[in-house]
Amino acid sequence: MTVESLDDVRELAQQLRVDSVRCSTAAGSGHPTSSMSAADLMAVLMTRYLRYDWQRPDDPSNDHLIFSKGHASPLLYSMFKAAGVVSDEELISGYRRFGSRLEGHPTPLLPWVDVATGSLGQGLPDGVGVALAGRYLDELPYHVWVLCGDSEMAEGSMWEAFDKASYYRLANLTAIVDVNRLGQRGPTELGWDVDTYAKRIEGFGCRAIPIDGHDLGEIDKALASVADADRPTVILARTRKGRGFSEVEDREGWHGRPLPAEMAERAIVELGGERNLIVHGPEPEGGTPRVWPSGEVTLPRYELGAKIATRKAFGEALAAVGARGDVVALDGEVDNSTFAEDFAKAHPERYFQMYIAECQLVAAAVGMSVRGYIPFAATFAAFFTRAYDFIRMSAISEANIRLCGSHAGTEIGPDGPSQMALEDLAMMRAVHGSTVVYPSDATSAAYLVREMADRRGVAYMRTTRGAYPVLYGPDEAFPIGGAKLVRSSPSDQVTLIGAGVTLHNCLGAADELAHDGIGASVLDLYSVKPVDTESLLAAAAATAGRIVVAEDHYPAGGIGEAVLQAFNDAGHPVQIAHLAVRGLPGSGTPAELMEAAGISASHIAQAAREILGG
Amino acid sequence: MTVESLDDVRELAQQLRVDSVRCSTAAGSGHPTSSMSAADLMAVLMTRYLRYDWQRPDDPSNDHLIFSKGHASPLLYSMFKAAGVVSDEELISGYRRFGSRLEGHPTPLLPWVDVATGSLGQGLPDGVGVALAGRYLDELPYHVWVLCGDSEMAEGSMWEAFDKASYYRLANLTAIVDVNRLGQRGPTELGWDVDTYAKRIEGFGCRAIPIDGHDLGEIDKALASVADADRPTVILARTRKGRGFSEVEDREGWHGRPLPAEMAERAIVELGGERNLIVHGPEPEGGTPRVWPSGEVTLPRYELGAKIATRKAFGEALAAVGARGDVVALDGEVDNSTFAEDFAKAHPERYFQMYIAECQLVAAAVGMSVRGYIPFAATFAAFFTRAYDFIRMSAISEANIRLCGSHAGTEIGPDGPSQMALEDLAMMRAVHGSTVVYPSDATSAAYLVREMADRRGVAYMRTTRGAYPVLYGPDEAFPIGGAKLVRSSPSDQVTLIGAGVTLHNCLGAADELAHDGIGASVLDLYSVKPVDTESLLAAAAATAGRIVVAEDHYPAGGIGEAVLQAFNDAGHPVQIAHLAVRGLPGSGTPAELMEAAGISASHIAQAAREILGG
Repeated sequence: MTVESLDDVRELAQQLRVDSVRCSTAAGSGHPTSSMSAADLMAVLMTRYLRYDWQRPDDPSNDHLIFSKGHASPLLYSMFKAAGVVSDEELISGYRRFGSRLEGHPTPLLPWVDVATGSLGQGLPDGVGVALAGRYLDELPYHVWVLCGDSEMAEGSMWEAFDKASYYRLANLTAIVDVNRLGQRGPTELGWDVDTYAKRIEGFGCRAIPIDGHDLGEIDKALASVADADRPTVILARTRKGRGFSEVEDREGWHGRPLPAEMAERAIVELGGERNLIVHGPEPEGGTPRVWPSGEVTLPRYELGAKIATRKAFGEALAAVGARGDVVALDGEVDNSTFAEDFAKAHPERYFQMYIAECQLVAAAVGMSVRGYIPFAATFAAFFTRAYDFIRMSAISEANIRLCGSHAGTEIGPDGPSQMALEDLAMMRAVHGSTVVYPSDATSAAYLVREMADRRGVAYMRTTRGAYPVLYGPDEAFPIGGAKLVRSSPSDQVTLIGAGVTLHNCLGAADELAHDGIGASVLDLYSVKPVDTESLLAAAAATAGRIVVAEDHYPAGGIGEAVLQAFNDAGHPVQIAHLAVRGLPGSGTPAELMEAAGISASHIAQAAREILGG
Repeated sequence: MTVESLDDVRELAQQLRVDSVRCSTAAGSGHPTSSMSAADLMAVLMTRYLRYDWQRPDDPSNDHLIFSKGHASPLLYSMFKAAGVVSDEELISGYRRFGSRLEGHPTPLLPWVDVATGSLGQGLPDGVGVALAGRYLDELPYHVWVLCGDSEMAEGSMWEAFDKASYYRLANLTAIVDVNRLGQRGPTELGWDVDTYAKRIEGFGCRAIPIDGHDLGEIDKALASVADADRPTVILARTRKGRGFSEVEDREGWHGRPLPAEMAERAIVELGGERNLIVHGPEPEGGTPRVWPSGEVTLPRYELGAKIATRKAFGEALAAVGARGDVVALDGEVDNSTFAEDFAKAHPERYFQMYIAECQLVAAAVGMSVRGYIPFAATFAAFFTRAYDFIRMSAISEANIRLCGSHAGTEIGPDGPSQMALEDLAMMRAVHGSTVVYPSDATSAAYLVREMADRRGVAYMRTTRGAYPVLYGPDEAFPIGGAKLVRSSPSDQVTLIGAGVTLHNCLGAADELAHDGIGASVLDLYSVKPVDTESLLAAAAATAGRIVVAEDHYPAGGIGEAVLQAFNDAGHPVQIAHLAVRGLPGSGTPAELMEAAGISASHIAQAAREILGG
């Protein structure tokens, strides 16, 4: 049907409620009441404002709809039914079932879903990323609509999003907050106090429009006003959870609970019965994204032996890779440390400053990935821990994002432990489908930046603060999943394995051992995940299983365990001497701190001697 | 000296600036200019308002001073010199040096420092925790003063803090924001726009007082007003970075850079030369904290075979452990899922609802730990990833906090991957000095809750959604660092190792194998960190090194790698069959999802058969 009147919209809203009840009751789980509160909002939106070609979800001019309150998936999937792209059969028999794409919380297994949600406070920051792409990259008039819950307004990440939305004047972004006043366990912090929400939102530079979220006329007016907005809009819709079924409406104790079958029957009756309306909303405006000119990528070339920090090489390589018009970069107000500033200078129009807001930093990258861009986001490696939930979720979103964390480990020296990433490899290795690289020199760092650009999933590069000698000639290749035998001879008795700064310590140790007449191979394990099992096996075979692994990281989840796991998975368990940071470091020089942590050249050499019974 | 006039205060401020310059120039690193901007603020505070007995930092009635902008450590340490507790010699020769307690960013190695800072956006949330303790637990009139930077106002966690500060009417908390308009790489997002800051802060329910941060009279008046406040105060001080030295004042390019020696000399001259004032500010009011009555802890007892979720046992045990008056609990608006609600019902006065704001949830626990309380904070395990930076920093803060993460792994079923913690063990194992436990039944869960109460550092318990049979009698002990051989006989050919839900799958596998005439031992590795190496070695010895490890977690950094590391560290590398979640799960029943992930009983049995060549 083409929806002419608000009475038709009301019918659609009731259908969405009925279907939300039906699918969750059939599944035996889910959030019907959190869907029912927002049904009127979504019914008006999809019939009159969401410019979307449901048959062509890849149309670049489509609007975007993100359910930041991902638990309202029954409502979203009911909308897909009303759009004619999901059958009633699939909705009822698929919802939350094993093997179905209609998961408990939305994921991009569904072509109409941009990002996975379900961890609250993420959909809006992700939407900011999509809106940034729309306004500054695609330069298309699509609008980003985000349905938010009221409980998630307590998440700091939401305020990072409102802040950045206004900073970047994202008039193409509208958040619709379903203020149903009831959270999972009872009333929310602010209840129906939409005035306080409005005050906060206006303070953050967005338009706040408080409305009755069940008054279709008010909803319509609020949504219509977006067209003339010169900044982001936040519609604060006062609603009632479970709206439309008197037995649960605005009652506590019904969060995340499907209605039992007999209640569902009564609900459907009260809601006017089942319907099967198919809705045709407005079409997208059409148009194609701006094409950013692309040139040849010419990586910087470094002279062997020159002392260059990998973070500097990252910046230079990023600027070089930026010759590709689809590459964008984002900073968390530290670009003179990470050297993302090199990209900023070369490609200012594709560079986004997110200030010190790491959650929004990662979310913006995810949003740009939705639109096909190749985002690189950089900050101190330690500070990506702030965004771990976003990184974890980006894997579920099937986002392709590249993160670069600088200033890793004790090597940073005097700044002390707050600035030292010593958990980042564990954190990043654990992410589903992630790639983790940790180059030791400028040549390999530059090469790996280019590799990351074409890598799918979450790719992470760890860089080092200090300047260390270039080890590799400019034509050497560093495929992800590889390793480099930097030094070896047939008479070597032990293999020293490092990555990043500890590779240099391994080389120092090999020199020290050579002095004692002990031959030591050195393996550069620059690809921490996936790890190069073949090279590890070859090294173990060449040096009779004598292996030292040194890492500037706590012992759990880092390079040592990656090596142990690789040997184990290959069916060749090997004993390694595992040097890692086991105490809490303080301030000092890099040399002092690596010595104290037991990961210096002398410690590595000593570990090798001990293996050899020396 | 006793400071009589604001002229005296001005002298002190100049001393703080001079000393900030001197110590950072001597160290060759540090942030003098970020210290100079806030020197006037701190000079007025320490002479007239900070009620603190510097000789007795443990006096419970002392005010608290937290540098959320931890990089201004030169200023803080210069204040310690002015208080007479750090010598000029220590300040100049110790700052940022190896082995010194005057680290690059403040840590509680210094008795006057409550929490480690240096990751921005954390000091204020931590301060909210201390202020909560002051108002609701200690019931002492101490005030919590937090010096914040303006760059960190972009962090969402700051707004979680303002929100909770006003929600809990923390009139005993004052944030002093040093709005020097220059961040690390250039101007901050809002520059000197204190009106916008004020609008936001008032929207969040706190008093905003914009002042000239170099006008001692204005500072004095603002700080004096705090005494009569009925809600938190935020002083927005417009300042100039590098204030007092014309060559750097309000100039870009001087963040985090010490002045070269000759510039430092000129700066000291311009600032009026070195001084060695010792200041006596106001004394604390005295008084002792409220003593919460303590009773005997009587853990719940569970009947063997009864089906009880470990999350339920967590809640019941937490309520029981709450008989100790120093135990407090905090929730992230999911207490009917984590069962922290059991504590809320039993001890409502020591229960704090933080709503969906996981950073503030953890920070509040850290703040309460500062005051000696025993905080337990609970949410879904997956959502602790949001607070990883806070958890990491709490280890540097030497905070004693207990976290319980429920709904771990694919076992949660239909809600899908956004709600499944599959990285939490890796994340928590990597934290310095952490404890990680993962009980499989109600008895061990309850026991471990009590153990965690007395554990130092960051202790984490992972609980399971579903109800599983009680395996242990009520008098069994589960020391942290132990493991339980649940099932074994001398003829066993293989050991099956699980924890939490996979322990039950291991038991199912052992049944299945027994059916085939294969004896299998089952080891409950409830203590994931520290892990019980002796039990692992004994198990390997008893079953000829044949071991299957199954975990409901991604393969990196979890139980499998903990086992490999333990064997490796013991010098006995062992090949394990490692069953973990290797794909991206969707929705389904727990049984379907564990089967699909390859961690079900049948998969474990099959892995055992394969080891045995079957």
